Amino acid sequence: MNSKIKLALEKIVGTTNILTQDLNPFNTDWMNKYVGSSEIVLTPQTTDQVSQILRFCNENALKVVPQSGNTGLVGGSVPIKDEIIISMRKMNKIYEFDLNSAIITSDSGVILENLNNYLFQYKYQMPWDLGARGSCLLGGNISTNAGGLNVVKHGLLRNYVLGLEVVLPNGKILNLLNKNRKDNTGTDLKQLFIGSEGTLGIITKANVLCIPIPNEKKVFFLELKSFQDVIKVQGFIKQIRNEQLLAFEFMEGKILHKNKHRHSGNKLPFEFQEDKYYVLLEIAGQSLNVDQFSLDMMEFTEEIVMDQSEKEAQFLWKLREEIAESMGKMGYVLKYDVSIPPDKFEWLVNEIYPKREGPFHVYYGHVGDGNVHINIVFESLSELHKEEDKIEQKLFGLVKSQGGSISAEHGIGQHKRKYMELQKGRDVLGCLSEIKSLFDPNGIMNPNKLL
Amino acid sequence: MNSKIKLALEKIVGTTNILTQDLNPFNTDWMNKYVGSSEIVLTPQTTDQVSQILRFCNENALKVVPQSGNTGLVGGSVPIKDEIIISMRKMNKIYEFDLNSAIITSDSGVILENLNNYLFQYKYQMPWDLGARGSCLLGGNISTNAGGLNVVKHGLLRNYVLGLEVVLPNGKILNLLNKNRKDNTGTDLKQLFIGSEGTLGIITKANVLCIPIPNEKKVFFLELKSFQDVIKVQGFIKQIRNEQLLAFEFMEGKILHKNKHRHSGNKLPFEFQEDKYYVLLEIAGQSLNVDQFSLDMMEFTEEIVMDQSEKEAQFLWKLREEIAESMGKMGYVLKYDVSIPPDKFEWLVNEIYPKREGPFHVYYGHVGDGNVHINIVFESLSELHKEEDKIEQKLFGLVKSQGGSISAEHGIGQHKRKYMELQKGRDVLGCLSEIKSLFDPNGIMNPNKLL
Repeated sequence: MNSKIKLALEKIVGTTNILTQDLNPFNTDWMNKYVGSSEIVLTPQTTDQVSQILRFCNENALKVVPQSGNTGLVGGSVPIKDEIIISMRKMNKIYEFDLNSAIITSDSGVILENLNNYLFQYKYQMPWDLGARGSCLLGGNISTNAGGLNVVKHGLLRNYVLGLEVVLPNGKILNLLNKNRKDNTGTDLKQLFIGSEGTLGIITKANVLCIPIPNEKKVFFLELKSFQDVIKVQGFIKQIRNEQLLAFEFMEGKILHKNKHRHSGNKLPFEFQEDKYYVLLEIAGQSLNVDQFSLDMMEFTEEIVMDQSEKEAQFLWKLREEIAESMGKMGYVLKYDVSIPPDKFEWLVNEIYPKREGPFHVYYGHVGDGNVHINIVFESLSELHKEEDKIEQKLFGLVKSQGGSISAEHGIGQHKRKYMELQKGRDVLGCLSEIKSLFDPNGIMNPNKLL
Repeated sequence: MNSKIKLALEKIVGTTNILTQDLNPFNTDWMNKYVGSSEIVLTPQTTDQVSQILRFCNENALKVVPQSGNTGLVGGSVPIKDEIIISMRKMNKIYEFDLNSAIITSDSGVILENLNNYLFQYKYQMPWDLGARGSCLLGGNISTNAGGLNVVKHGLLRNYVLGLEVVLPNGKILNLLNKNRKDNTGTDLKQLFIGSEGTLGIITKANVLCIPIPNEKKVFFLELKSFQDVIKVQGFIKQIRNEQLLAFEFMEGKILHKNKHRHSGNKLPFEFQEDKYYVLLEIAGQSLNVDQFSLDMMEFTEEIVMDQSEKEAQFLWKLREEIAESMGKMGYVLKYDVSIPPDKFEWLVNEIYPKREGPFHVYYGHVGDGNVHINIVFESLSELHKEEDKIEQKLFGLVKSQGGSISAEHGIGQHKRKYMELQKGRDVLGCLSEIKSLFDPNGIMNPNKLL
């Protein structure tokens, strides 16, 4: 790192906000799949500092990577080479929650869980929830339009972001903050920054519409004989309880069976069978009428478990949430988050691995909103690398053939860049590139990601 | 109209899709406030025709106005001068409704009510509803991000548009169609066209996420003593029945009192008092428990009326919906659709007309989502024109001072162009202009609207 540059940056953020040693946690994603070699991490504390950093970097053609909680899965928040990392974690003020409008105003560097802890006093909560809630930051959530567990009920994160403050690559601060649920004054510029993975600017503040914590919640676990039954149950619940359906998560029995030894202290809801299909579903609302709900579910299964306490509910959720982590412990994992019509999930997996042979693989996830996760485990990284391209070309081709999406919620990052033309088509990609050039003519923002 | 141009356009759309006479309904908005002088209306029937029209117009620097139902309130869909009108009403095919995903695929020229009639067979409905439902078109709804009656529950129209097909000013057809609830593959280009009032391209097809028709619905009418009580009831319902609250509409007694002679055949819910405040609210869901709800409401009012039939519900809604029309019959009306924090509505009106003196004026509307309508009636158009600027400068200045929006749902059109800098600030406006130039370098699309 050129010492003149370091000095100039230090002058902007102060000596306590510049790191040049022990940068491994910033250079590597949490899966250890993507590794950069940045020599400098900045932790600005104000929007003005972010603005000065970007202006300086733009004028000197220095490339930067904005970084939030670094919990992404597609290598979007770590450098490719030696880009300057701008870590947003010190911009962590919550300004206010307006109870009348249910809108929170916050810096972008606040941890999602901290937002929920703050909102708890008002009996409100954030409208999205992710496994990474304890470490992901608001700005990262927004800039990746993160998906998560409650999309089936609440819809996309994008729908709740009412306002943003954004710093453009040239240092200009765009005030797109807004505390009105309805503001219909033309092209909604802030939309461009939601989901753009830090390629167009850095989000520094946000207004988010929050939701009341429901009076009553109940988690159910179902054992089903076939994947077709999973689809049927889902359709049925959407018809009779659409408003109350908070989550609808599907898991193959083979992964729950494999994980069962991890829970010696807890009573499992079922003797998990490898060839069965399991559903975790949560309903929430004012008057749930759970007995009727259980009866309704009996039409589809003889086996149904309902939580008897908040603690049991948490344990049932744990069975679902730990899958990602437990796969990671089994070996080197290829993870996919595709969207296709729900009734095609099983077909898709069978096309990749006829007769379900090949390396250990499972599909599971947010079937309620059309998004399934396919995880494939390899014994070594070299084996994974050998297979990766082959699998992806086939998988993404099949997904595209069904009108699906190659990324339902994880985003593009480094991982899926080369499939963007397959997904978007040349004309759309051309438009996106022109917009990128408009905002970032020198290409300093998160280079070699997304586009 | 140059006959060579006419011939070329006729060659693209065919003789049955070009009109050069009796163009008054196309040149004038339904309020008779904005009047253009176009000499030609095209009614293309395919996306390819739209593409050829725009390519030809772009190459020959001919300005165009896209027009849907022409039900807007800000003069956005009528020409300023002699622009070519592209009426989308003949592109009215509904392609499919996928019951599994609840997504409809349709041409943009379908009437909103026709979409609902089609969806009825599946027990689904469109997620937004407007007074103009019988004549407004899907594409117009989307290109203006129309608001309407159910935003308090369902959120903005924008949230339900999953995919679009758009023709750019240069004739390029962008396929942004998408039938996945979750598609997180970077910058969401389609967002740019939603709410851009036809200044960036023409929407030809759309995928929209629909919602199930609720099992049970109930309309209530409340009489309240003060506007503060209106705010209190709203806060209370959001706490106890947030999920079920479909609409929360407020009306001043003085307009209901004035309209009462219109309903000689029907029983009014109340003897409307000029100094009282009235609320129409609708709840919808699975098990409404309406008796408990009525009891809860008694805490705020002694007077509450609940519909006893679908017909009565419709009549109660009529009392609210006819206000716009009845104001029009009283004289020449200035109409505003501002967003501000709900507890500031009364203050705002009092600031404009201290002691509520001056010309006849009322405020009413979607108080549940922070959007109030202020209507001011003048006896002549000349009087209206004399006052318009003065009122707007004051009103929009006050709205801005409270962090509000000068347009909650009607949009900008011709009407509010000159207040865009007040609303957005210079930097944001600069960005929007650059995006406009990127898509429409020759400025042919809906000129002198929005920006």
